[in-house]
Amino acid sequence: VAVGVCYPAGFAAAAAGAGMKPAGDDVALLVSDRPAAAAGVFTRNRVAAAPVLVSRAQIAGGSARAVVTNSGLANACTGRRGLDDAWSMVAATADALGLPAGQVLVASTGVIGRPLPIDDVTAAIAAAAGRLDPDGGAAAAEAIRTTDAFAKTAAIEVELSAGSVRIGGMAKGAGMIRPDMATTLAQITTDAAVAPDALSALLRAAIDVSFNAISVDGCTSTNDCVFALANGASGTTVAGEEDVQTFGRALTAVASDLARQVVRDGEGTTRVCTFTVTGAGDDRAARTAARAVAENVLVKCAMHGGDPNWGRIVQAVGGALPGPVPLALDVSIEGIQVCSAGAAIPHDEHALEAAVQGPELEYEVTLAGSGAETEVFFSDLSYEYVRVNAEYTT
Amino acid sequence: VAVGVCYPAGFAAAAAGAGMKPAGDDVALLVSDRPAAAAGVFTRNRVAAAPVLVSRAQIAGGSARAVVTNSGLANACTGRRGLDDAWSMVAATADALGLPAGQVLVASTGVIGRPLPIDDVTAAIAAAAGRLDPDGGAAAAEAIRTTDAFAKTAAIEVELSAGSVRIGGMAKGAGMIRPDMATTLAQITTDAAVAPDALSALLRAAIDVSFNAISVDGCTSTNDCVFALANGASGTTVAGEEDVQTFGRALTAVASDLARQVVRDGEGTTRVCTFTVTGAGDDRAARTAARAVAENVLVKCAMHGGDPNWGRIVQAVGGALPGPVPLALDVSIEGIQVCSAGAAIPHDEHALEAAVQGPELEYEVTLAGSGAETEVFFSDLSYEYVRVNAEYTT
Repeated sequence: VAVGVCYPAGFAAAAAGAGMKPAGDDVALLVSDRPAAAAGVFTRNRVAAAPVLVSRAQIAGGSARAVVTNSGLANACTGRRGLDDAWSMVAATADALGLPAGQVLVASTGVIGRPLPIDDVTAAIAAAAGRLDPDGGAAAAEAIRTTDAFAKTAAIEVELSAGSVRIGGMAKGAGMIRPDMATTLAQITTDAAVAPDALSALLRAAIDVSFNAISVDGCTSTNDCVFALANGASGTTVAGEEDVQTFGRALTAVASDLARQVVRDGEGTTRVCTFTVTGAGDDRAARTAARAVAENVLVKCAMHGGDPNWGRIVQAVGGALPGPVPLALDVSIEGIQVCSAGAAIPHDEHALEAAVQGPELEYEVTLAGSGAETEVFFSDLSYEYVRVNAEYTT
Repeated sequence: VAVGVCYPAGFAAAAAGAGMKPAGDDVALLVSDRPAAAAGVFTRNRVAAAPVLVSRAQIAGGSARAVVTNSGLANACTGRRGLDDAWSMVAATADALGLPAGQVLVASTGVIGRPLPIDDVTAAIAAAAGRLDPDGGAAAAEAIRTTDAFAKTAAIEVELSAGSVRIGGMAKGAGMIRPDMATTLAQITTDAAVAPDALSALLRAAIDVSFNAISVDGCTSTNDCVFALANGASGTTVAGEEDVQTFGRALTAVASDLARQVVRDGEGTTRVCTFTVTGAGDDRAARTAARAVAENVLVKCAMHGGDPNWGRIVQAVGGALPGPVPLALDVSIEGIQVCSAGAAIPHDEHALEAAVQGPELEYEVTLAGSGAETEVFFSDLSYEYVRVNAEYTT
C-alpha cells in the first residue's frame, strides 16, 4: 500500500544500500511522474552541509521532480570534495531518471566530517532508480533513518471545493533536534496543484508550529531540510482563500504529525511534554520562555524521573527572559496550579506526583501581558539519551 | 587550622543544623571582628530568591560584618513569607552578634518553592553564633553544601608593597551551574583594606573569568550570589596601581580555584574540559561560541563517552553564531587539528581517540577575525548527572 510520500498520486519511491550504515538501505529516491512545484526550508546552522548548499541553489527555481537522500554520513565539513559529491548525487539521479539536473534535490544525514563513498552512492542511486515503486514510500522512510527507532510517515486526504487531494510525508529523527529551522530531514508530497510561492508560504507556516515547535536536545543540525513537492496529479488546484486555508491546515497536520513522531522517537525518550506559554505580551518572549524550558536539562531530568519539580520550570523561564525582578508567573502541571504570581501555592502534592508518572505530560506557564500563546513539544532526558550519545559517533 | 573564609585575619565562622538537609549542618555564619568593605554579584535570573533581594538591598551601603547562609531550601518562590523569613535570618544574626541589622548579608540554596522552618533556622543561627571560631571555615564550607560531593575552599597569601595580605573563600556547587552571574554561592574574605568601590570592581573582574566562565548544566540558579568582604585586619591597604593589580590577580586566582572546583564537583562529572575560542572578531561572539559548546548536550555526551566527535563542536558553534554560510572554523582536540576552514583534515584517528580518554581535555576553536580570546571550563554529561537530577528533588 502507498504510505507516506507515496500516498498522493503520481509519486514513486525506492531505496538501495551503499554501505554507509551498519545495516539496511541508506539511499532513498523520491520521484514525481510529472513536473512539481517545490519549496524548501533549511537549517540556520552556519556550518551547513554540502547538500544543504546544493539544494538551496536547486530549489530557487520553485520546481523539482526528484529528491535523493542518503543516511549514515552527513556530507558536512567535507569541503570542496563534499560539494562535488553532492553534485554527483544530483547528476547520478538525473541520469538514472532521464531528468534535467536542475530538477533534483539532495539531502544527507549522519556522521559529520567523513567523505561519502561516492561510487557506492551513485551505484545505489542507479539501483534504486531501477526499482521505483508507487508503494515504495515505506522503504524510503526506512532508508533515511539513522538512530531512529522507527520510520516516520504521515498521510492525509482533504476535501477542497473542486475535489479531494492527498498529502503525504516522511521524516527522520532522532538527535540534534531543536526548534530552529528546519529540525530534521522531512519530505512532504501532495497531488494538489499549488503555485510555488503559495507552497513556500504554506510550508513555512506549517513548519513554524510543527518542526519549529519541538525539541529533543536543543541542538540545531548542520543538515536540516524540509522539502515540499506539489505535482497536481489529482487534477485539483489549491485556489481561493477558503481552499488555501483548508489545504494549509492539512499540510500543518501532516507536518505536526511527523514532528511529534520525531519527539516520541527522540533518542532515549521515555516521556513527552506539551508545554504552553500564555501571556508574555509578545510572541518572541513567549517562544523564548517555551524553548528555555524545553531545552533545560534539569527540567528534562526531573520529567524523566517522574518528579514534579516546578522550581526548575520557573528557574528556566526566569533565566531566559530579560526584564525586572521579580517575574510574576503562574505555573500548572497536569492542570494542577503550583505557583501563582511567582510564589508557591498550596496544592495536593500526592496528586501532583501521581499525575507526572504517565508518558504524556502538560505544563503551562502564564506570564503577565496578553496576546501571545505558544506551544512546544519536547522529550525528557534519560540515561538512554546519554548512552546513545556517549557510545556512538553519530 | 584556618581554612577558606577564615584564612585571612579577623574572620570567624561556625555552623549549626536546622533540619533542612537529611543530615549535617545547614546553617553557616561568617563574621568579621571589625567593619569590612563588602561587594556582591547576584544572579540575573528574574525569579530571584528572597535572600537575593534582601542582600542586594543590604550591600548597597558597601559594608557588611556578617553573612548567614542556609542550605537545603532555596527560599525562592516563597512570596511575602519568603521575604519575611530572609529578614528574620538577618535580624536573628544581628541580634546574636550584637550588630546593626544593616551589616548582615543572607544567602540560601536548595529546593525551590518550600518555606523555611524559620524558628529552627533562627535557633540554629543563635547556636552557631555561640560557637564562632577562627578555625570554623571548614565547618561553614561543609554546611553550605547541597548535592556537592566535597566542600570547596581556597586560600592565598599575596605580597603587596606595604606587606602581605590573605584572601580566602568557599563555594558550593553542584547543579544549576552556568556562566551567567554569579553561578553558585561563594563567599570571599580578605584581611586587606580595600575601598568598597575598588572591591566591587575587582570582584566583578575576577568573576568574569572564573564563575562566569564555567558551565555544568547551562542552568542559571535563582539564588546565585558571590560576596566579598575586606576587613583590613592585616593593616595593609590595597592602593596604587601595582598593588591593585597584584591583589586583583590574587582575588581572581581564588575565584578561579573555587569555580574550577565547582565544575570538577559538578553533578555526575567524570571529565572536565578547557575550551578556548580565538578569533571571532569580538568578545561577545567568542563567548557565545564558547557557551554554545559548553552547554551542548551532544558535545557533553561525547566527552563522557571518550568519543572525539568534533562534528558536534562545529555543529554547536555554527548553530550559535548568526552570519553568512559557510562558517570557516578550525578545530583542535588535545592539540590535534581535525578541521580547517570548516572542512575535515586528515589526522591520526587512533591518536585522537586515545587522547580523549583522560580526565582533563582541551578543545580549541579558531574563528575568522582577530582580537578576541575566551575560555570556558565545563563538565561532561553522564548517566550519573541524569540519575542525580531525575531521582532527587533539588
